[in-house]
Amino acid sequence: MSANTGAAAQAQAQIQVNAPPLLDLTIDNITPNTVRINSQSGDARLTYLMSRLVTHLHDFARETRLSTDEWMAAIEFLIGCGKICSDVRNEFILLSDVLGLSLLVDNINHPKPPGSTEGSVLGPFHTHDAPELPNGATMTSDPEGEAMLAICTVRDTQGRPVPGVKVDIWETDSSGRYDVQHADRDAPSERCVMVTDAEGRFWFRGIKPVSYPIPNDGPVGKLLARLNRHCWRPAHVHFMFEKEGWDHLVTALYIRGDPYETSDAVFGVKQSLIVDLEKVDKETAAKYGVEEGIWLLKYDFVLTTKEETENLRDQLASEALQKLGLRLKLVDHLPVPDLD
Amino acid sequence: MSANTGAAAQAQAQIQVNAPPLLDLTIDNITPNTVRINSQSGDARLTYLMSRLVTHLHDFARETRLSTDEWMAAIEFLIGCGKICSDVRNEFILLSDVLGLSLLVDNINHPKPPGSTEGSVLGPFHTHDAPELPNGATMTSDPEGEAMLAICTVRDTQGRPVPGVKVDIWETDSSGRYDVQHADRDAPSERCVMVTDAEGRFWFRGIKPVSYPIPNDGPVGKLLARLNRHCWRPAHVHFMFEKEGWDHLVTALYIRGDPYETSDAVFGVKQSLIVDLEKVDKETAAKYGVEEGIWLLKYDFVLTTKEETENLRDQLASEALQKLGLRLKLVDHLPVPDLD
Repeated sequence: MSANTGAAAQAQAQIQVNAPPLLDLTIDNITPNTVRINSQSGDARLTYLMSRLVTHLHDFARETRLSTDEWMAAIEFLIGCGKICSDVRNEFILLSDVLGLSLLVDNINHPKPPGSTEGSVLGPFHTHDAPELPNGATMTSDPEGEAMLAICTVRDTQGRPVPGVKVDIWETDSSGRYDVQHADRDAPSERCVMVTDAEGRFWFRGIKPVSYPIPNDGPVGKLLARLNRHCWRPAHVHFMFEKEGWDHLVTALYIRGDPYETSDAVFGVKQSLIVDLEKVDKETAAKYGVEEGIWLLKYDFVLTTKEETENLRDQLASEALQKLGLRLKLVDHLPVPDLD
Repeated sequence: MSANTGAAAQAQAQIQVNAPPLLDLTIDNITPNTVRINSQSGDARLTYLMSRLVTHLHDFARETRLSTDEWMAAIEFLIGCGKICSDVRNEFILLSDVLGLSLLVDNINHPKPPGSTEGSVLGPFHTHDAPELPNGATMTSDPEGEAMLAICTVRDTQGRPVPGVKVDIWETDSSGRYDVQHADRDAPSERCVMVTDAEGRFWFRGIKPVSYPIPNDGPVGKLLARLNRHCWRPAHVHFMFEKEGWDHLVTALYIRGDPYETSDAVFGVKQSLIVDLEKVDKETAAKYGVEEGIWLLKYDFVLTTKEETENLRDQLASEALQKLGLRLKLVDHLPVPDLD
């Protein structure tokens, strides 16, 4: 490790030598002083984020009178989360998920006007190596799974089909594991990318999803166990929709009647996303070239435009911040203190 | 990675199947629902910590309307911190230090009655392999450093010497690096453990400390750069005092006149810990077997008993929580909600 003792660091040091003194900091004055020293970047958004972060962090310690042992346990917990992260595992997203933060951030950023498809949590298992498959393709290589045909459409809020949408789809295999959870994974499985056709349709053959535990052999799993929380997610298939000019939609469809339907470990279930599976009838089987009697998932997704979402997000942000009594303005759709 | 699909997980899952439904969670109801699901451990302190943590985390996201990109940048930052941690580097302690949290937690846990020695931040460079050296020993192997004799005493608040105190001492070498920052470190250097003698004294030969940058080649260094903050600490020597029945004291002595005296990157400096170095006179040189004219650091540390500190901590905690309007009681010296 190289310590920076060179000229650059010396020059940087000059920045603050004339700053007001940071001396004799106490429980009562550490927060304004830390906020002040963090407010010199000239980036109003960064200044605001750091100010709220430091204030909440310090208030947390003051309200709990956080003990040195608890502080050290938190440090060790964070190190443990970092150490278990890999190209195919993100323990910090999992932590954000089980603390409800992921759901909250998604709701803030992707508000949905009535009639549009609601979002759900991304989770830590999306990858960027899924193969692009043509409509009708099979996206699973699991012989144990119960075959399921999915027939979906993508429309706008006026009911018009949206063609050319990139749709990312991923689910677990029948054992409840994503492909990346298998040590011997050599190629993507139970995941694919499709593109909606001229009528906004996409269809594929997968397997009926199963409930599964989120990875519980790491620090987040241990935390859930200490909290006496279960680590299960109800059966679902993930979907992510992308097209220029349209709001990025991350969502999932949940199968009605799952035992974890109302206790999802990561808070992702919405009633509008719970579906009843049907069975493929003779006519459908013939039309799509699948066996009669396999599971059938049908869903009509409704996307919003980027503009619709941005306008709604700005409106909701302004209303919420006013309700919180915060004097802020939106710059690039994000709040910063309004000093005018 | 092994997913837990066994009987234990199934049994654990039963815990919550009858819990109130977690469905259709929104910006407005996610917080009470997350707090509720985290409140089933039967451990009142853990329940309280999680409740405040989740509330602050969610409030932070709501007040800032945290964007998905910012959320992902935070996830990546935390992963980066975890990845750079090693046996000899703790980036999360460094992060806690530069955010003022370490100073705050130390002040909460180790309040000092008037006349006792104040604490300072532990920092990330304390190790557990320092050699125990006899009084008068040399704790440095750096030929470039300016020689310094330190003569110290340890007393109680009534002025009585405290013998048999274990004193951990560590400082950088003359280049501003701790031994653990050298890739080729094969043995501890510029660090030792001493024990106070019957008169509460300890003395050793080290080097005059120098200002140094905290490790700035990792995520925390990059954060400081973005915040336009310098990464320097004023010259100091770390001390840690331990003896059964006495409050654990983590502190440091700072050399007066350092350019970073009032802008310490980790907020550690207190006026009572700033010392004027003297020069060793002829008599002292003869008495301690060192050269006349080398630097002389003299300091009288004052420890408090565990009981004194606990009483003061409880008193300050009760006062502070009352002032915050929180209805809490102390159990094992730590606040939990008072539900009686």
